[in-house]
Amino acid sequence: MAFGWIDEQASARRRAGLVRTLRPRPADSPLLDLASNDYLGLAHHPEIIEGAAGAARTWGGGATGSRLVTGTTELHGELERELAAFCGFEAALVFSSGYAANLAAVTALAPHGSLVVSDAGNHASLIDGCRLARGTTQVVGHADPDAVRKALGAAEGPAIAVSDTVFSVDGDAAPLTGLAAACRAHGAGLVVDDAHGLGVLGDGGRGAPWAAGLAGAPDVVVTVTLSKSLGSQGGAVLGPAKVIDHLVNAARTFIFDTGLAPAATGAALAALRLLRREPERAARAREVARALHTRLTASGHEAVRPDAAVVSVRAPSPDQAVRWAADCRAAGLAVGCFRPPSVPDGVSRLRLTARADLTEAQIDRAVGIIGDTRP
Amino acid sequence: MAFGWIDEQASARRRAGLVRTLRPRPADSPLLDLASNDYLGLAHHPEIIEGAAGAARTWGGGATGSRLVTGTTELHGELERELAAFCGFEAALVFSSGYAANLAAVTALAPHGSLVVSDAGNHASLIDGCRLARGTTQVVGHADPDAVRKALGAAEGPAIAVSDTVFSVDGDAAPLTGLAAACRAHGAGLVVDDAHGLGVLGDGGRGAPWAAGLAGAPDVVVTVTLSKSLGSQGGAVLGPAKVIDHLVNAARTFIFDTGLAPAATGAALAALRLLRREPERAARAREVARALHTRLTASGHEAVRPDAAVVSVRAPSPDQAVRWAADCRAAGLAVGCFRPPSVPDGVSRLRLTARADLTEAQIDRAVGIIGDTRP
Repeated sequence: MAFGWIDEQASARRRAGLVRTLRPRPADSPLLDLASNDYLGLAHHPEIIEGAAGAARTWGGGATGSRLVTGTTELHGELERELAAFCGFEAALVFSSGYAANLAAVTALAPHGSLVVSDAGNHASLIDGCRLARGTTQVVGHADPDAVRKALGAAEGPAIAVSDTVFSVDGDAAPLTGLAAACRAHGAGLVVDDAHGLGVLGDGGRGAPWAAGLAGAPDVVVTVTLSKSLGSQGGAVLGPAKVIDHLVNAARTFIFDTGLAPAATGAALAALRLLRREPERAARAREVARALHTRLTASGHEAVRPDAAVVSVRAPSPDQAVRWAADCRAAGLAVGCFRPPSVPDGVSRLRLTARADLTEAQIDRAVGIIGDTRP
Repeated sequence: MAFGWIDEQASARRRAGLVRTLRPRPADSPLLDLASNDYLGLAHHPEIIEGAAGAARTWGGGATGSRLVTGTTELHGELERELAAFCGFEAALVFSSGYAANLAAVTALAPHGSLVVSDAGNHASLIDGCRLARGTTQVVGHADPDAVRKALGAAEGPAIAVSDTVFSVDGDAAPLTGLAAACRAHGAGLVVDDAHGLGVLGDGGRGAPWAAGLAGAPDVVVTVTLSKSLGSQGGAVLGPAKVIDHLVNAARTFIFDTGLAPAATGAALAALRLLRREPERAARAREVARALHTRLTASGHEAVRPDAAVVSVRAPSPDQAVRWAADCRAAGLAVGCFRPPSVPDGVSRLRLTARADLTEAQIDRAVGIIGDTRP
């Protein structure tokens, strides 16, 4: 019988207590949110909502086709120009998701005969990009520029190194300066996913590559999401114009996908413009993360010092992590919970995300609940 | 120098006349559109636009996180329930794109040790799904149930056959009944992409699997897009509840992607409700396609008889196809143009899409322009 093997997998998951279920949230959820990636608190900002609604009114409910046929509107062009300028790159290309942007960047920049050096802690979408690419992938230890340098030394054709700028699980930053130096020593390109850096790091949220002095470099390509700090949906690749032109011609997740919906494009553009006008939001997100870390550490929790807006708190075991997160939720606080097999190092943790719009009282309340429910 | 090899590829593309460029369209484009996949003409329908705008107002600009963390709203649940019920399946799962839905369905249903039998004419996203899957893929000839049956006979573990229901390039339909019989003879699952069937084929647009009597079958999984007939963005997988639960637990493009934006979810839901209320739109899209085919054939064009809403017209050569499409555009008509290397059979063609809201006068105008500009 078709799909019979699924029953066995489902049983095994139930026995291991690893069943994932969806929990639809109401529009008026009373939970204090430290689980989303809405780092700047823009997803519900009136200007972003009007950006979405206005774009739908002007441009319709969907892009109606591939970007190369009917799916490119002038609104997409506006967002691409302003996003590239904001982050300091020559050009940008918008995708329907950050996942699609990562698949595009890695596959299009790793042709047959090339080498991809990939950090062991990279996001699933970068890993899938490596697996789809025609080049050969070598995975190296986490945040280790020396290992990258050594791996690149073996390359005989084109080569790139691929890394998140801020790793989603622990919120630690990649050693971008070291990675760029390793790449340059071998004439390799550096491809970094700034999903958790855009809007949080760099002057006014211009991102981790900007903060590292890599913005606009001819050998650096950056991917971002529009669904985290920008409160919308979608992704983008930023880089030299010739790389962007190459993606238009070669990236399958660009060519064979419907263009990003006008509403998502408009929401992201509104968020970008608001961030330009209110650059202090980026610093505030970092400040909230530091405050969470300081107060949690002071209360005896084992928390990783945040490099951006993600604060990771160690839990004693997978079971206790799950119970801890559930107890937080019962007390009115939404937090993320990461445990094996979705963490590479086997360490279970609560994952808290700082938001620029959290008040001091909310931070205190969150820290209080986490302490009260501690296993 | 990093990315130096891109210059060589770009030069080769220029020499071959194969450079793709983006052409941003204004909101008030005067072109008659026979190029988009907006088969029911809903992308600009007031109810769909209000579906997008209203959802953004209620739910925000973005879903704010992965579907498993904060990214599932009650709105996603509504769309999933209504979409599954409409198409006659037990359950549905919504993705940020049809591309992501196809990657999810194929990778999650083709585990290590399994066999995937894939039609040679399948969409890029199904092909990428096969390449990402841990199972082994065997590509078989286009629309050939006997070849599928033979290939499945060699399977030693779980097996699926994968096919578009309506192929995007020529608009021809897959032999679904034969494919299902081939799968059943071997206890294999059938996974079909109904991107170009939903909203066009089956009673009131319930899709090609419905039309073939396969809706709700325990061994059939269907993927759809929300970006074509439903005028929005996104994709979905429909199937038995246990398959959908499996995807929630195993599909990387579901687990590691931000949920579909509320505006896109709301637009798709509004379109689905409108289609339920006005089922004649589906029949009208097919009628327009047949009218285009009849009139083009009567004028001496070589056009493929349309099984859904895509009408393919043969062009004498790649260069002439490009010029023909450009001349149509200059005369006020937007048509698609497919040529090598993006067509598997090396045949260049104009690709026309019927829309349910085209008037007889518009059909006549389109046929007139295509005739007048014929190379």
